[in-house]
Amino acid sequence: MKAYVYVSLKKSVLDPQGKTIYGALNKMGFKGLEAVRQGKFFEITLDRDLTKPEAQAEVERIAREVLTNPVIEEYRFSFED
Amino acid sequence: MKAYVYVSLKKSVLDPQGKTIYGALNKMGFKGLEAVRQGKFFEITLDRDLTKPEAQAEVERIAREVLTNPVIEEYRFSFED
Repeated sequence: MKAYVYVSLKKSVLDPQGKTIYGALNKMGFKGLEAVRQGKFFEITLDRDLTKPEAQAEVERIAREVLTNPVIEEYRFSFED
Repeated sequence: MKAYVYVSLKKSVLDPQGKTIYGALNKMGFKGLEAVRQGKFFEITLDRDLTKPEAQAEVERIAREVLTNPVIEEYRFSFED
């Protein structure tokens, strides 16, 4: 079982890296873009022995306590078999 | 309409950052993990005027030509209204 944790900057936080990419894409001639924001994700491969609720609790804790800076970031996660 | 482009290292490419996170999580006592790999994603907000096929072609080009280093990375993308 694999878990995917997606960490992104909160909407209220400026994303200069995304802005730079947005500017570059515009200069390169890509049309129809309004904004670009960048985030990161983590693919976590889990033991097969874990039950789904155990896995969910574990991944939630990892996302909240380790992978995310709660001051400026938020997370979501999903599972895939 | 929003597009999400997910860029990750090819399976055959070592991911030292992911390995470090994996090691740290193990030391912190998280059980049941087999591997961690890190990637990045881009949230691209698109003009409402674009049709779905146009948007798809545009995002595919951006992902392939700009956001991904084809030597070591691969991408996938999805849409959300």
